[in-house]
Amino acid sequence: MVTMLNLLAIDAGGTSTRAVLIDSSGLCLGYGTAGGGNPVSRGIEPALDALIEASKLALEGTNGTPSQVLVAMAGASLELPTKPYRDRFRTLGLTGDVMIESDLLAAFYSGTFHDDGVALIAGTGAVGARIAAGYLAEVADGTGWLLGDLGSGFWLGQKVAWAVAAALDGRGPATALTELLLTELGIPFDEQARTQGRLRAQQQLILKVYERSAVELSRFAPLVFAAGNDAVAQDIIELAATALAQTLTAISGGEGMSAAPGAAQPLVFGGSVLTKGGRVATAVAEKFAEARTMQASEPILVQDGVVGSAVLVLKRHGIEVDASVFARIQDSLASLRS
Amino acid sequence: MVTMLNLLAIDAGGTSTRAVLIDSSGLCLGYGTAGGGNPVSRGIEPALDALIEASKLALEGTNGTPSQVLVAMAGASLELPTKPYRDRFRTLGLTGDVMIESDLLAAFYSGTFHDDGVALIAGTGAVGARIAAGYLAEVADGTGWLLGDLGSGFWLGQKVAWAVAAALDGRGPATALTELLLTELGIPFDEQARTQGRLRAQQQLILKVYERSAVELSRFAPLVFAAGNDAVAQDIIELAATALAQTLTAISGGEGMSAAPGAAQPLVFGGSVLTKGGRVATAVAEKFAEARTMQASEPILVQDGVVGSAVLVLKRHGIEVDASVFARIQDSLASLRS
Repeated sequence: MVTMLNLLAIDAGGTSTRAVLIDSSGLCLGYGTAGGGNPVSRGIEPALDALIEASKLALEGTNGTPSQVLVAMAGASLELPTKPYRDRFRTLGLTGDVMIESDLLAAFYSGTFHDDGVALIAGTGAVGARIAAGYLAEVADGTGWLLGDLGSGFWLGQKVAWAVAAALDGRGPATALTELLLTELGIPFDEQARTQGRLRAQQQLILKVYERSAVELSRFAPLVFAAGNDAVAQDIIELAATALAQTLTAISGGEGMSAAPGAAQPLVFGGSVLTKGGRVATAVAEKFAEARTMQASEPILVQDGVVGSAVLVLKRHGIEVDASVFARIQDSLASLRS
Repeated sequence: MVTMLNLLAIDAGGTSTRAVLIDSSGLCLGYGTAGGGNPVSRGIEPALDALIEASKLALEGTNGTPSQVLVAMAGASLELPTKPYRDRFRTLGLTGDVMIESDLLAAFYSGTFHDDGVALIAGTGAVGARIAAGYLAEVADGTGWLLGDLGSGFWLGQKVAWAVAAALDGRGPATALTELLLTELGIPFDEQARTQGRLRAQQQLILKVYERSAVELSRFAPLVFAAGNDAVAQDIIELAATALAQTLTAISGGEGMSAAPGAAQPLVFGGSVLTKGGRVATAVAEKFAEARTMQASEPILVQDGVVGSAVLVLKRHGIEVDASVFARIQDSLASLRS
């Protein structure tokens, strides 16, 4: 490394954005956060505002200006023109270019500096990706709440609501989820009260669910972990783990894995269902190992994609990231975030 | 019967409305149809317009004016004020009142004149009802596309889309549904073409599904019956039948049934999934009989609720409907409709 470059790496999520200024040795110099930075869900201008806000905070007090910017975003944003980004970052002194990368790669590289492996993310949505030679080789699920996202927060929340609707009219077994969900929604439970043959508690559940947007069902997901040993809740968790393991298995059958038979490649898990979902992550790893009839790697849990964005901005500008550089990124970022 | 009264019976559905003028002997005098008459989905004025349009056609050439009107509508409409209805029907010479009843009762009475039994409707939605002494005693499911409606047209269509999304990225088995759905949506299928790791055909499926409203997934339901012996399609049909049998079992455990142990009460099936869904109706009846460990009645299939609306308008005005009156309603209506 001849000159020390300052690079700006940004993890732009749907609800929050993280930016880090990093030098070419992997030392993180400044860190900032802002609101949602996804141009598809937020609109391009509000998304750019969030990116600039987080970046300003990251640059503050560092005396640095970025020579290059990398932004990690969700899939649908990857084919957007980069000019509006470049124009806005010029105002922060950007001399070079803006590169847009997938948030799946950023999640993967938040857990490893290796260029081959798999990532599984289960937050509000659920998606799996196989990474080969530093790029996305295969993606499975991530098809959204209407078409899939099996095992995601939305999926769990909808399963909770389905189970309670079924328990109320006798189509399904009684479950502790009923009291949890009705309490959460402020619905009184009377086993006798009916209107036109329908249990009044169920009628109110229907009204409360449909007055919100569909994706808000995801907020019921935590109830499945709050229901203790309830059999219905345990079944839902088990089904989620099975679905997520299937997603993982689907993307792991490709060439990247068979090229090194038996070699355990990094397995990166992200998203609240996997990082905060109790035994979901363990169950997924077990089912995955079973399906592959081999010893699976211990999953590496990541909280977000900011470390990976930093790894990517270095790699994409020809800077090698080895174990010591990766550790430097992690450690210096951790102290900035604490 | 001292005087011959003319009564108007209306089956007001979400997409179409049917009206029949009937005399107190059960003879249908006139019949008319119009567009959707549901005030919740269409708005009160357009819904009233449809009711009046169908009614005018039913009155045309009969020289009759209705002394009473009965309108059968979906559950959510049942607690609406009847005054706007009365006011509009006065313009057709109505001397008496307008009564609003559940479309579930109208569907039930389209198949039988008995006052106790069960009805199962699986069209775009799915709902079961137990009828006791001529009124709704218990209702199960009918919780809508986000919360349930298991085994409905929406549910089948979504299962088709899920299965194809999973087949495309290897989470699920290959299925004949893939070609059927991609053809229906005009998506070319190339097993190699990927963008950012995602199969391009899947990316296009995602775009096409989300650019429509969620409930439009129901239009994929017929594909499951078009897929021949495809194992994935057969599994979906089997699951639908199981879910519908559960709905039926849930509403059949009540007092109404145990009051006459062993007596087979009428079992009325309506909605396109049950009336046009190949072996779904048979499979539901079999699974239901199994769950109850008894001989189930042969299900009576009904196309819509207009016969039942006519039965209801007579019953609610104190006119007895026996086998011969019921046959007169069916026969005279059939010739008006042909």
